[in-house]
Amino acid sequence: MALVSRHEVTVEWGDCDPAGIVYYPSYFRWCDQASHRLLAMAGATHNTRGGPWTEGTPLVAAECSFKRASQPGEKLLVESHVSRFGRSSFTITHVFRDVTGEIAAQGTETRIWAKKTGDARSLNAVPIPEDVRKRLGG
Amino acid sequence: MALVSRHEVTVEWGDCDPAGIVYYPSYFRWCDQASHRLLAMAGATHNTRGGPWTEGTPLVAAECSFKRASQPGEKLLVESHVSRFGRSSFTITHVFRDVTGEIAAQGTETRIWAKKTGDARSLNAVPIPEDVRKRLGG
Amino acid sequence: MALVSRHEVTVEWGDCDPAGIVYYPSYFRWCDQASHRLLAMAGATHNTRGGPWTEGTPLVAAECSFKRASQPGEKLLVESHVSRFGRSSFTITHVFRDVTGEIAAQGTETRIWAKKTGDARSLNAVPIPEDVRKRLGG
Amino acid sequence: MALVSRHEVTVEWGDCDPAGIVYYPSYFRWCDQASHRLLAMAGATHNTRGGPWTEGTPLVAAECSFKRASQPGEKLLVESHVSRFGRSSFTITHVFRDVTGEIAAQGTETRIWAKKTGDARSLNAVPIPEDVRKRLGG
Repeated sequence: MALVSRHEVTVEWGDCDPAGIVYYPSYFRWCDQASHRLLAMAGATHNTRGGPWTEGTPLVAAECSFKRASQPGEKLLVESHVSRFGRSSFTITHVFRDVTGEIAAQGTETRIWAKKTGDARSLNAVPIPEDVRKRLGG
Repeated sequence: MALVSRHEVTVEWGDCDPAGIVYYPSYFRWCDQASHRLLAMAGATHNTRGGPWTEGTPLVAAECSFKRASQPGEKLLVESHVSRFGRSSFTITHVFRDVTGEIAAQGTETRIWAKKTGDARSLNAVPIPEDVRKRLGG
Repeated sequence: MALVSRHEVTVEWGDCDPAGIVYYPSYFRWCDQASHRLLAMAGATHNTRGGPWTEGTPLVAAECSFKRASQPGEKLLVESHVSRFGRSSFTITHVFRDVTGEIAAQGTETRIWAKKTGDARSLNAVPIPEDVRKRLGG
Repeated sequence: MALVSRHEVTVEWGDCDPAGIVYYPSYFRWCDQASHRLLAMAGATHNTRGGPWTEGTPLVAAECSFKRASQPGEKLLVESHVSRFGRSSFTITHVFRDVTGEIAAQGTETRIWAKKTGDARSLNAVPIPEDVRKRLGG
């Protein structure tokens, strides 16, 4: 069973653009926020705590489909789970529902587990830690 | 008695910069979010709902002092109230406290009540509606 | 021949996250910026000028692959063109190259041409205006 | 003579909010971008290059006054210089002018020179390096 993170976001005034609806990069910020919550639920908080960043889950790809425009003040429920496990890469699926339960947007992020030894670009893919993978449902 | 809005924000990974602490414009986004909550508590939601924007509270000035650096995953409590009422302008004071209760940041926004008749720049200052002023504590 | 927009972006300190590299939603902001430049080159600026928003190009979907992590201070060249024309929908392909000419990221946005009659959600797909389509190379 | 950085920003669609004008935290992003340009002109780029962040110029306070609302597609010229030097703190003044030369916004940032020894919060104020101070005009 996949571990599921549920996370409510409020569509803020500043998340929207002159069309009066969500500025689409905001959905990706919310996807990223949801992934950090899901990973934290699985015990992987090392990449969000103080000290120089040495381990984390950088993105390989991201995509999202937008179904219904949302406006300032709306609440969206984001449901997230890992939908594919590779050795060091994995895909998180995010579904955004509005208060009526309808899907407002739906997307995925493909990330790798990575360690950094030198500068910010010296990222090396490493296997997903076994305990984290198990907690995520893989 | 001033009406007070209390609003918890999570310091997200994406709210922080390569120094590993909050990227300071994020505090102003949180101030703006808090002001919309406070105004909504006072019944003033017209400027955040659909349709062309015709009335709102644009900024005249904003300032913030940063006392303690916050990191991803921290929770901050934002307390906001109107600390000064003019005829059409007013000042909102925002205090950010971390989980220990210490002040992490403190700022103000000075806004005017404005109506728009033509294009996005045709803003005219109008008196703060009496019912909203009363609910805000003025 | 497709019309091509070329647009240099500087990776700003605030576009990056605690890992010291670009926070991925920043790439989508840059894609959106590039699309506005491309549409403006084709004469379609109505959706970025004052007055209530009544016509524009909202997103249906967006995706991006990230090939090389970029850091604060780097320059990226974004090249954008319409790679698919439907009746009212179209796809813009964006390629980001770093100063060495290597691809740092590559993505697409699928947008529709839309008019708004009532509130911010009353969007109706309409055919891409013929003159804009021609200038875009369709 | 104070060293002056001049930096043009385009008001992007995504920098604006449903009122159709600049979402005010965007001005602070532009102030931060201008400060990094000014500091780079003075030879201080250590805090924007790869590797763990160990030295930089975190904010103590920031404020901005907004004079004229700007809209998507407008160009703003940002002029920045250090207007006050302390031992480790300094204030940068930023002036935003629109194409007519009128001031659109004006603000200051107060920063300290800081080194980090341990985690992201272990910041210690240190004297502004003498060569940087001289190049900045102090």
